[in-house]
Amino acid sequence: MRARTSQGRPADAAVARGAEALVDCIQRFHARGLCDGTGGNFSLVLEREPLQMLVTRSGSDKGRLGARDLVLVGADGRPCDLADGAPSNETPLHVAIAQATGAGAVLHTHSVWGTLVSEHFRSAGGFRIGGYEMIKGLAGVRSHEDAVFVPIVANLQDRVALATIVVGVLEAHRAARGLLVAGHGLYAWGRDLDEARRHVEVHEFLLQLAGRRLPLVRFEG
Amino acid sequence: MRARTSQGRPADAAVARGAEALVDCIQRFHARGLCDGTGGNFSLVLEREPLQMLVTRSGSDKGRLGARDLVLVGADGRPCDLADGAPSNETPLHVAIAQATGAGAVLHTHSVWGTLVSEHFRSAGGFRIGGYEMIKGLAGVRSHEDAVFVPIVANLQDRVALATIVVGVLEAHRAARGLLVAGHGLYAWGRDLDEARRHVEVHEFLLQLAGRRLPLVRFEG
Amino acid sequence: MRARTSQGRPADAAVARGAEALVDCIQRFHARGLCDGTGGNFSLVLEREPLQMLVTRSGSDKGRLGARDLVLVGADGRPCDLADGAPSNETPLHVAIAQATGAGAVLHTHSVWGTLVSEHFRSAGGFRIGGYEMIKGLAGVRSHEDAVFVPIVANLQDRVALATIVVGVLEAHRAARGLLVAGHGLYAWGRDLDEARRHVEVHEFLLQLAGRRLPLVRFEG
Amino acid sequence: MRARTSQGRPADAAVARGAEALVDCIQRFHARGLCDGTGGNFSLVLEREPLQMLVTRSGSDKGRLGARDLVLVGADGRPCDLADGAPSNETPLHVAIAQATGAGAVLHTHSVWGTLVSEHFRSAGGFRIGGYEMIKGLAGVRSHEDAVFVPIVANLQDRVALATIVVGVLEAHRAARGLLVAGHGLYAWGRDLDEARRHVEVHEFLLQLAGRRLPLVRFEG
Repeated sequence: MRARTSQGRPADAAVARGAEALVDCIQRFHARGLCDGTGGNFSLVLEREPLQMLVTRSGSDKGRLGARDLVLVGADGRPCDLADGAPSNETPLHVAIAQATGAGAVLHTHSVWGTLVSEHFRSAGGFRIGGYEMIKGLAGVRSHEDAVFVPIVANLQDRVALATIVVGVLEAHRAARGLLVAGHGLYAWGRDLDEARRHVEVHEFLLQLAGRRLPLVRFEG
Repeated sequence: MRARTSQGRPADAAVARGAEALVDCIQRFHARGLCDGTGGNFSLVLEREPLQMLVTRSGSDKGRLGARDLVLVGADGRPCDLADGAPSNETPLHVAIAQATGAGAVLHTHSVWGTLVSEHFRSAGGFRIGGYEMIKGLAGVRSHEDAVFVPIVANLQDRVALATIVVGVLEAHRAARGLLVAGHGLYAWGRDLDEARRHVEVHEFLLQLAGRRLPLVRFEG
Repeated sequence: MRARTSQGRPADAAVARGAEALVDCIQRFHARGLCDGTGGNFSLVLEREPLQMLVTRSGSDKGRLGARDLVLVGADGRPCDLADGAPSNETPLHVAIAQATGAGAVLHTHSVWGTLVSEHFRSAGGFRIGGYEMIKGLAGVRSHEDAVFVPIVANLQDRVALATIVVGVLEAHRAARGLLVAGHGLYAWGRDLDEARRHVEVHEFLLQLAGRRLPLVRFEG
Repeated sequence: MRARTSQGRPADAAVARGAEALVDCIQRFHARGLCDGTGGNFSLVLEREPLQMLVTRSGSDKGRLGARDLVLVGADGRPCDLADGAPSNETPLHVAIAQATGAGAVLHTHSVWGTLVSEHFRSAGGFRIGGYEMIKGLAGVRSHEDAVFVPIVANLQDRVALATIVVGVLEAHRAARGLLVAGHGLYAWGRDLDEARRHVEVHEFLLQLAGRRLPLVRFEG
């Protein structure tokens, strides 16, 4: 997707291909109940220097999403073309995560288990999970004996302030491939859309597992 | 949908469009297990002055619903055309909610979690829920720090009496976008069908979350 | 479906219509996880005097079922045409329930919640459930204030002996529209296939509700 | 599928038929959440003497799997054609199970309930389950009064060493039709793909049942 027009905007074909892949991913998540209502927002990086990414439109219904509901934004989180309307109000987090991690896609889901677990471990600032083969689905994990720490940050309606906090947390937890915003949901990312989607599936599996275990045993926070 | 025939009945095209959208919404809910058996009933306002709304037929199977299973009723809850047969016996609640709130659609679902939670908090007359980003999917909520109160009313087979009680509860809880009938299910509404559907998804998410949390912690009623 | 050939066998068209409707019902149940593996069996009455009914073939895979997997049997539970192969080994229960209740269809599902709840209340011989609007989906129930008793019988591999016990239980509980075989699953029936399917949906909803409530409160057995 | 080319490789048509059936099975499992992310791997025996089997490619996305993602391997677990790329790194377990049991297909799923239950009973080396009609879906079980023992082995990233341990466990538990790798998932097998798929469905049902019962009663380990 390196083709560029003379104006610095990615070529229309690259935008269209990216939009199609992102919409397909979101529809698959919606069918699994990961972005009910207007919950969740999603982005795909099309250009790095300077940053340009597609982000879901503010308040769009994820069950009926189409390419028309994606907005191309720059590194300032503003739409490249004002006629496109407003991107998600969580765009500052997408931009910050893409820049801090070099991710090619950032996916934010709202699941019941993610919400419940984020609340349970909120005061600990995150939770450590290991001993499961599933964690090998995260880039950089080589053995089930490894453990990953999933950071949890408090929710803030000031998304710019929240993005700043998230960048600090990511610097402290460089192995993280996802993080929870407490009472809100999961952000996961990857070097491309396929890896990001896999990271969402792995985290959502672990969140459900952690949540279902809570009534049984004290979880090794 | 303002086009009207000389008889005061909405134009056929407006009825057909509304019916198509309502049927699509119901089929999506049925696929998610929100209206099993003959559970649930649904309405869409076509005219305000005087009120005319489409309501699902009494006892219709929501998994096989078509436009033929919708009945046009007036402000008295009676079919505009007797040949259409009987609307849901919960039509008085649909009319009352549409008039009390100005809603353009009223959607009533039967979920396991809604039933369980409605029973748990019945004696408290409702439950307060806040601190979750998901509540921002409700019209009028600006921050996850807000809290919403979901009223619960006792179930009554006398639907006219039940409707009167519901109107009183709505006057006392003007910010509510949904309410539970104990041991029965959720009513949610919105200014149009899209908003009402979103309000159902948000409430059902919160009900599942509240229900799954019950074994873990005392819920802040 | 009263059309009969001179041989006393229902007309081919009646068999084909019945088979199509029954297969559609089973496929919908399978998609919801109600008959995994070879679990579950299903029947539809085509003739009353003498009894002739379609029953699913022994060991058939419910996820790939077709009309070829249905066997026409008589009141003795044996295939009308030996070339059709063997019907389900639970055919004696289908015949017994159809004759004892006058049902037009008998549907037997295997759900996790049904299995769990049947085990929990086994020693009590059943469980009473009331106060839920959903029970109005059962024929004969007029108010949520009614209660229904769902009988539970011990499982027996001798299906003829089990059928005899079931007939006794049905005589003692004439209002029942379903019963559980402990550690095994639900039988529900209705005057026709639509009512039987609705009775399955209502019972499975109540079984899930009862099961999810178990960790929360003592259930009013 | 006995047709062979002169080179000892199964005929292309046999490979294509096998691949189609295996891909269909995997897609059905993925739709049910049994192989999220890159979780799970699957194999089908095409030849016995010497062993040749199709195995899913390493790291393939089970939600988008096609015949191109299957690799034909021999008894040494290596691809018959190096151009096919690398099979799953769990291929040694597939080969070992196929040889130890004579299975025609070996299916490995990752479910939340399987992971949770495998961890709970890990120290006991497995768990016994009986009294459920569902166990009759396992080859060799004649009555619900029988019980089956589902062995659990510790997870090892050294798949060759793990395969050796699994062979020893299978010799000690000849009636087993499935086993759990702790914190990892289920392996189930059958004389052909249909039986193996049924054995997965039966085990996953029992794992969910066992997991949901844990908060209620002490499980008869």
